[in-house]
Amino acid sequence: MKTALPLCRLGTHRVLAPAGSLPQAAWKLDATPVAYENEILCDVEALNIDSASFRQIAAANDADPTRVAAHIRELVAERGKVHNAVTGSGGMFIGSVRAVGAALRATHVLDAGDRIASLVSLTLTPLHIDAIERIDMTTGRVWMRGTAVLFASGLYAKLPDDIPDDVTLAVLDVAGAPAQVRRLVRPGHTVAVLGADGKSGMLACVAARDRTGPMGRVVGIAPDRNTAGARLLLENGYVDAFVEADARDTLAILAAVPETLPLLADVTINCVNVAGTELSSILLTRDDGTVYFFSMSTSFTAAALGAEGVGKDVTMIVGNGYARGHAAVALQTLRDHPALRTYFIERYGADPAPPLAPHRV
Amino acid sequence: MKTALPLCRLGTHRVLAPAGSLPQAAWKLDATPVAYENEILCDVEALNIDSASFRQIAAANDADPTRVAAHIRELVAERGKVHNAVTGSGGMFIGSVRAVGAALRATHVLDAGDRIASLVSLTLTPLHIDAIERIDMTTGRVWMRGTAVLFASGLYAKLPDDIPDDVTLAVLDVAGAPAQVRRLVRPGHTVAVLGADGKSGMLACVAARDRTGPMGRVVGIAPDRNTAGARLLLENGYVDAFVEADARDTLAILAAVPETLPLLADVTINCVNVAGTELSSILLTRDDGTVYFFSMSTSFTAAALGAEGVGKDVTMIVGNGYARGHAAVALQTLRDHPALRTYFIERYGADPAPPLAPHRV
Repeated sequence: MKTALPLCRLGTHRVLAPAGSLPQAAWKLDATPVAYENEILCDVEALNIDSASFRQIAAANDADPTRVAAHIRELVAERGKVHNAVTGSGGMFIGSVRAVGAALRATHVLDAGDRIASLVSLTLTPLHIDAIERIDMTTGRVWMRGTAVLFASGLYAKLPDDIPDDVTLAVLDVAGAPAQVRRLVRPGHTVAVLGADGKSGMLACVAARDRTGPMGRVVGIAPDRNTAGARLLLENGYVDAFVEADARDTLAILAAVPETLPLLADVTINCVNVAGTELSSILLTRDDGTVYFFSMSTSFTAAALGAEGVGKDVTMIVGNGYARGHAAVALQTLRDHPALRTYFIERYGADPAPPLAPHRV
Repeated sequence: MKTALPLCRLGTHRVLAPAGSLPQAAWKLDATPVAYENEILCDVEALNIDSASFRQIAAANDADPTRVAAHIRELVAERGKVHNAVTGSGGMFIGSVRAVGAALRATHVLDAGDRIASLVSLTLTPLHIDAIERIDMTTGRVWMRGTAVLFASGLYAKLPDDIPDDVTLAVLDVAGAPAQVRRLVRPGHTVAVLGADGKSGMLACVAARDRTGPMGRVVGIAPDRNTAGARLLLENGYVDAFVEADARDTLAILAAVPETLPLLADVTINCVNVAGTELSSILLTRDDGTVYFFSMSTSFTAAALGAEGVGKDVTMIVGNGYARGHAAVALQTLRDHPALRTYFIERYGADPAPPLAPHRV
């Protein structure tokens, strides 16, 4: 089985339109359920639709799961992928390997039947749907039958046996955060984490605590110190202090600095899911320090002009969703910290949603 | 002379509305022409309006300099600063020091009469206009009489005697680029510069050449190798190779890689002034390499999701307009390279525009 185009590790041979574009930029992909020589074909069990995308699709269909299912089927029939044109975002899938292309067998350690989660966006993943079986309207999880294709450049993680799938997916979604924190933070560092009590923020705090050691200092920042996440961080010593402040309120953030961060942070991690927190992140950081923007709400120009406007010589890093070994690091962080693991299982190990009436989807 | 608010190094004491905002976010600043204790008051000679802002203002006024002058006067009367609400951008000013506040005299090495250029945006600079005298419609330079205030956190550079003002301003506008290149590039590195023949791109190439030394390799990339800038880079050995390609055309960029960048770049510098070049920058860079996005056209999400989508573990840095000593580094780069200096003087050392009829502005 061959396509008309030369096989490409980035998957351009699957692009139907516009010609010459890359899969993420393409309008339509060829989702034919075969594994070309440099591809991995997977049986899909479930999609995890990106939350911004799922919220938009749900709203457009009055939160009716049957209509949401039809919407997703039509979208995939039209584009060959789950690529929400309104939000620009996708999500990821879990499934099992059906076939590994000949050219990949030497380098990829996958066998047919291995259960995996994709770590590249659904916006570039050829997807074919046979049936949608269930939708969890609170999490954006879509149980389905069908196939997806991973390219040679595509990333995936084997699903571990010792952590529930839902929890693994929740962790993999933000796996870049703890991996990057481990690289950026050194023993003795002072670390500030904005949005500390969210999913990526908690993993960032715990990874920072592991790296700073007893001479370092981790300060969590979020609007409410009484959320379950904030309490867990404080009670387990993952943070030394917790500042109650809205990261958008730069003056409130600055007011908290003299007591909790008198020398400012060596590394500031921004995990906030709202816009307008760039300047707070910059002002919390010492000169020559580093700001890591993991939040997808970050504005490039607000960061660049913000630092210049206050004359702050900091290194500002774009949160790359990928870092070598990031899935393993993130899952191991959970294993090493039972309190965190219990919290994630309680919060993200949800019961599956009821099945949709089969004749309607 | 005092304001009602406590003096703040970020200038919040100059904010009239909305209360509690920082100067850049504020709608209106108090531009009263005095130097409070922690401020520097300057006599302004000229504004350099940001090009996106000036283009918008010029278009809205049929490119009529008299109407443009009136527009700027009204804008400053209303907001106390040059802050274009459409583009969100400002610019910088040149002028001379009139007074240095008592609290700054120990730390700032400025005397009354020193000629300086501001290095913070006009969007946060209190500005008072007495008269607008001339406007250069091609460069966005506005000669005027009036005053501006620099806060304790504000940045400026003394204007050198040996380089024309216009050229100094053109260089200071992109001074962050060569300073950051010097930090990121090491001897022996391979460096790719996208948008190599523009103002920041040329300075980046020259700074990279200085740092890589003879064992390193600098590759310039731009759509046309016959521009004056591209020819200067090639003829003076500032680049080892020049790739003719549009940075938005990822497949064209990749096609050029095997010959010119077989091992990919250790450091990629993006100086392109159009959107959609993030993925090309990422794909040109080796794993564990660094992408420096100096272009303000960069999309944060395109960079973050792009690297994840192709599974590339690169460090992506937001181009901070400020780095300690960046003005000195940029100007010295010009002095050290006479061919570059001559080019910049020919290109940016423009004759002043004719005066506006005085009774009309």
